Amino acid sequence: MKKALAFDIGGTKIYSTIVDETGKIVSEIDKFSTPKTLDEIKTLLKTQIAKYENNVDIIAIATAGAVNNENSRVLGSTGNLVEGYYTIDFQSLSNKKVFIENDANAAAWAEYKIGASKGSSVSVMLTLGTGVGGGIIINDRLLKGKSGAAGEMHFKMYPDKRRKCTCGSWDCFEAYASGTALKWDAEEMLNNPNVTTYDVMDGVKNNKKEMVEVFERWQNDLTAGIIGLANIFDPDCVVLSGSMAQFVDAKKVEDNVNKEIVTTPTSIRIGVAGNYSGMIGVALLAMERGL
Amino acid sequence: MKKALAFDIGGTKIYSTIVDETGKIVSEIDKFSTPKTLDEIKTLLKTQIAKYENNVDIIAIATAGAVNNENSRVLGSTGNLVEGYYTIDFQSLSNKKVFIENDANAAAWAEYKIGASKGSSVSVMLTLGTGVGGGIIINDRLLKGKSGAAGEMHFKMYPDKRRKCTCGSWDCFEAYASGTALKWDAEEMLNNPNVTTYDVMDGVKNNKKEMVEVFERWQNDLTAGIIGLANIFDPDCVVLSGSMAQFVDAKKVEDNVNKEIVTTPTSIRIGVAGNYSGMIGVALLAMERGL
Repeated sequence: MKKALAFDIGGTKIYSTIVDETGKIVSEIDKFSTPKTLDEIKTLLKTQIAKYENNVDIIAIATAGAVNNENSRVLGSTGNLVEGYYTIDFQSLSNKKVFIENDANAAAWAEYKIGASKGSSVSVMLTLGTGVGGGIIINDRLLKGKSGAAGEMHFKMYPDKRRKCTCGSWDCFEAYASGTALKWDAEEMLNNPNVTTYDVMDGVKNNKKEMVEVFERWQNDLTAGIIGLANIFDPDCVVLSGSMAQFVDAKKVEDNVNKEIVTTPTSIRIGVAGNYSGMIGVALLAMERGL
Repeated sequence: MKKALAFDIGGTKIYSTIVDETGKIVSEIDKFSTPKTLDEIKTLLKTQIAKYENNVDIIAIATAGAVNNENSRVLGSTGNLVEGYYTIDFQSLSNKKVFIENDANAAAWAEYKIGASKGSSVSVMLTLGTGVGGGIIINDRLLKGKSGAAGEMHFKMYPDKRRKCTCGSWDCFEAYASGTALKWDAEEMLNNPNVTTYDVMDGVKNNKKEMVEVFERWQNDLTAGIIGLANIFDPDCVVLSGSMAQFVDAKKVEDNVNKEIVTTPTSIRIGVAGNYSGMIGVALLAMERGL
């Protein structure tokens, strides 16, 4: 059976493990804090690769940032990775073939191959965490755009400069549907700068009215964004993944989306591929498309 | 040379002509007011088809509404066409093959084959008229979605129930970027319910400050919508077509879009395939994909 050495490189953590061609994780998961310099990142990756590359068929790297599959590089610096990250030639780190993909795209692929969107012809995945990521799959292909950068969920929600987004622009969906956005909703609605996302979710669990109202505003903005995506893509399903997804009332969102769209009804699902879906997805992609 | 008898069926007008495989219109353009009953529409189409079908290879129909290419029907009623329109089996109207496509998709295809987006790998087209239509082409294929309904530009701009959209929902891009939207902007900003889209454009031409401000608000909302689409699709270009497109400052919109997007720079272009691009596009699609 084919196997891939998979990595997930984020702004704070780097994970690595071995994944087989069925999407099963078949070794320990190694976890590291993301080093602060380019050289340390390269050294970390090289060390891991040297340790395991003889046991696998391909190296598969899920990373933050837009990815050019052709030459195994990222296209530009992303906000939360070290300067110059885009200069890394990932292929040079191994004697085996190195396949790289954007982390949200990789997670979407995992849901599509072994998770919540399995069998769909068109699916949209949203990762709702500190930020919002996206991956779109149409007829068995990831939507990549002209340069590999497609699927960025930075469309504007209230384009009148209410909220600055991490992307540097204003009013993006991410600033209304991320975990950070839930904190901002709470700050605004409760007039309390110290309230946390955790406070809100704890309040919802204990049925505290003001926290339920904060959460509903957040979920309504999420719903509003999904309505647009459902009208644009007419997808079989929209999969919600990431740390915030567990709190979403998928049935309620689905009902409200289907009430408003002009396309045909879609299904809202919570992702099932788990926290390591980035590594699973990029490994499956690499073994299917990269060998 | 192959030829198609092409129709463009809208809520107010029906056009018909013959288009050759290079996209050239090779006969007179017949124009009709759209009949008010289903039977009259069918009779009109049958009469035109009977008159010309022996001179062509295929019948190509661009129509309002989401389209199922497999069985040559529209999927549901659209707001501005007669009740029961979706029951028409277009194939039954001719002995030749009948190919149908959504009108905005057809116009996007015309721009892609002979117009402003020729040669692009990913393009988004927006028709800015009474409403806003959309057509997206990725790697030589129209984005159709699971049921043929994709490309509907009903994503929310200000999702707090400011403006009712023709789709029955609230706050859609169409309610901020259509010709109708420009009138609404003027009504609101000038506190005058009788001002028209024409008044605004006439004022802009004569450099009247308040009309320029109205138009700039409209163009800024258009820009905000395009930023989202550019981040989602990472397109080579966004083509603006329809009656309002001529007024858009494409260079200014392009500069402002490229300042804000997280993907790679895109190009904003005004469509060149003309008023009959729906017929040209559906004819080219039919001759390429339907025969």
